[in-house]
Amino acid sequence: MNGKPLVSIISAGMSKFGKHEGLLAREIFSQAASEAFSRCPKLEPKKDIKAMFIGHMGEAYEHQGHTGSVIADWAGLTGIPATRTEAACASSGAALRSGIYAVLSGLADVVVVGGVEKMTHRTTAEVTEYLAMASDYPFEQWHGITFPGLFALMATAHMHLYGTTEQQIALVAVKNHYHGSLNPKAYLQKEITLETAMASRYVAWPLKLYDCSLITDGASCIILTKPELAAKYTDQPVHIFGSGQASDTIGLYQRKSLTSLNATKLAAKTAYDMAQITPKQVNLAEVHDCFTFAELMAYEDLGFCKIGESGKFIESGETRLGGRIPVNTSGGLKAKGHPVGATGTAQVYEMYLQLTGQAGKRQVKDAEVGLTHNIGGSGATAVVHVYRSAQ
Amino acid sequence: MNGKPLVSIISAGMSKFGKHEGLLAREIFSQAASEAFSRCPKLEPKKDIKAMFIGHMGEAYEHQGHTGSVIADWAGLTGIPATRTEAACASSGAALRSGIYAVLSGLADVVVVGGVEKMTHRTTAEVTEYLAMASDYPFEQWHGITFPGLFALMATAHMHLYGTTEQQIALVAVKNHYHGSLNPKAYLQKEITLETAMASRYVAWPLKLYDCSLITDGASCIILTKPELAAKYTDQPVHIFGSGQASDTIGLYQRKSLTSLNATKLAAKTAYDMAQITPKQVNLAEVHDCFTFAELMAYEDLGFCKIGESGKFIESGETRLGGRIPVNTSGGLKAKGHPVGATGTAQVYEMYLQLTGQAGKRQVKDAEVGLTHNIGGSGATAVVHVYRSAQ
Repeated sequence: MNGKPLVSIISAGMSKFGKHEGLLAREIFSQAASEAFSRCPKLEPKKDIKAMFIGHMGEAYEHQGHTGSVIADWAGLTGIPATRTEAACASSGAALRSGIYAVLSGLADVVVVGGVEKMTHRTTAEVTEYLAMASDYPFEQWHGITFPGLFALMATAHMHLYGTTEQQIALVAVKNHYHGSLNPKAYLQKEITLETAMASRYVAWPLKLYDCSLITDGASCIILTKPELAAKYTDQPVHIFGSGQASDTIGLYQRKSLTSLNATKLAAKTAYDMAQITPKQVNLAEVHDCFTFAELMAYEDLGFCKIGESGKFIESGETRLGGRIPVNTSGGLKAKGHPVGATGTAQVYEMYLQLTGQAGKRQVKDAEVGLTHNIGGSGATAVVHVYRSAQ
Repeated sequence: MNGKPLVSIISAGMSKFGKHEGLLAREIFSQAASEAFSRCPKLEPKKDIKAMFIGHMGEAYEHQGHTGSVIADWAGLTGIPATRTEAACASSGAALRSGIYAVLSGLADVVVVGGVEKMTHRTTAEVTEYLAMASDYPFEQWHGITFPGLFALMATAHMHLYGTTEQQIALVAVKNHYHGSLNPKAYLQKEITLETAMASRYVAWPLKLYDCSLITDGASCIILTKPELAAKYTDQPVHIFGSGQASDTIGLYQRKSLTSLNATKLAAKTAYDMAQITPKQVNLAEVHDCFTFAELMAYEDLGFCKIGESGKFIESGETRLGGRIPVNTSGGLKAKGHPVGATGTAQVYEMYLQLTGQAGKRQVKDAEVGLTHNIGGSGATAVVHVYRSAQ
């Protein structure tokens, strides 16, 4: 691995994921910020923090845009430069990337990145409509397809090309629910059996209820600084060694492949090259399982297994806690929950806990190199980061 | 002025502002990108451009979010990191700031920043509702106040404190319509008299129809690079010497002053300090005249005149073409138009034309130092940049 980190994480916070009845997004974010600030007593937030990027996907949920300044104000940081970043479900992955640019620019030594979404007060129909805005309006939404349908098309193509089965896809849910059962901040902290997952109703064939991530309220918050300043704030920084972001066509219909996300491959190549590692060196990963099938596709696009072999790879148990490369130890979007704007930096929160040995019952032993993978929409955005513990 | 620029502008493009019936935002943006690319024949967009930030305020207009990747694809840049930035009407001011971070980071030598909005296909009621999302939902929007009302409160307070008159406020419209009459890309290219402005109907007392900016379709696009690389692409770069962004409370009701925007003052101080200039050294400016009164407030907060004296300052003619510091030579939001996401970088486009001597009939003679000022909402975001021509 490259000897020089890009930036260092000096603290992190996350609200409980689930239902926060009666709270506004700004209030949920303040819980995440409060944890991040209290974990880092040497930080003087109002004095030290020079910029903020907040991932927030949908202004329709609370009829509230201009979220950067709202969040900055409620986090006690009124006055600082604060910008909302939006790249669908990769909104806070993009916030992290923007925060890295800011730290490296030399204009902002300490930067907060994070994300938030308040979703559960809306009906499922409303949420489905708001999420669909991340697909192509004239050529996808307008014709009635929404995200379960788009990912079902990808899953179907993969089943056809490689013989992947519904059971293999459902195993992602079983694994992630197991991991979620060990995470006190996860929305669903209960194990499920393969039989339960397979017996759940179809949402969009072959994807069933247990193949879909959860409509969730939540927020996450990460504090970044230059590697040479990290020791001023903490004895336990986590360093970011690789950062990649890439885009693709908004419409699935424009792509060469339905079974692979080119944006993931591009972002991963950039991140791996920057960190000077190969996929084999990754000890654990948080990947974007908005639908269970998306996790299988991520295994392949990130190089954790060969193309077409992700079905067998989940069966092998290698991505379960105790396996060679545990994936989504947090429970993932499937069990931890998916408050869309908060998801990217919530993945970073899990990586921070794991690489500082604070992940409790779901701690990965000897974890040193981690990876996060956050996608927007059906893959028109992908953001990949590579981390290493300071130990 | 500081000897070393932060970044350099090597090209710029802007669509006509006005009504673009039957076009999507992405198609309007491609007009702006096409101009920027063709102005800079030495640039190979697909090869050279490494990141994109797109200001886009409202996903409701076209039921389309995830705009970064949509715009990147339609500009022929599929694959590059592309992020939407949103800070209300300062969305593309925030894109510029994010682009500067990216160039300075060393991770992206050439970066496109821009913005777009497609608004005119919606009814005035819809646009008013969508824009209102940039104010505080629970304590402003919900009670029925929208932006004309918020700026009217500020104007009223200024009239009460300083004796500013409705005529003085209306003179901003007269000046900006004159400037717009000289800009072939402005939405309204017609002069108006003070009598016409004063006789227009009230929208929110004391603001009348001619005190309000225009619901507009349009896009703008700027290409940035490191100063040391600028000569590779152009003989006529424009350098950015100062960059400031700041936030404030989302709600007007939480602020100490109704007649001054603290975010503008903070952002301006940062930009002036970085550029090592005083307001007296500014030769021309594009300021955020979403309502005519906002331009008067900007004169004071940017230090162009003393606090409370902006009414007399507009009367003096100093901010008209031919005066000491022409303001909004493009026509401003008032006459050029205000496609909200595009406005911040459209101000930069005007600065680029002026400081490279390409502003035609509205060219400011011997213009050397320029300033742009872009605000979001009622001032919860402000972005200020300082420019100098390379000559």
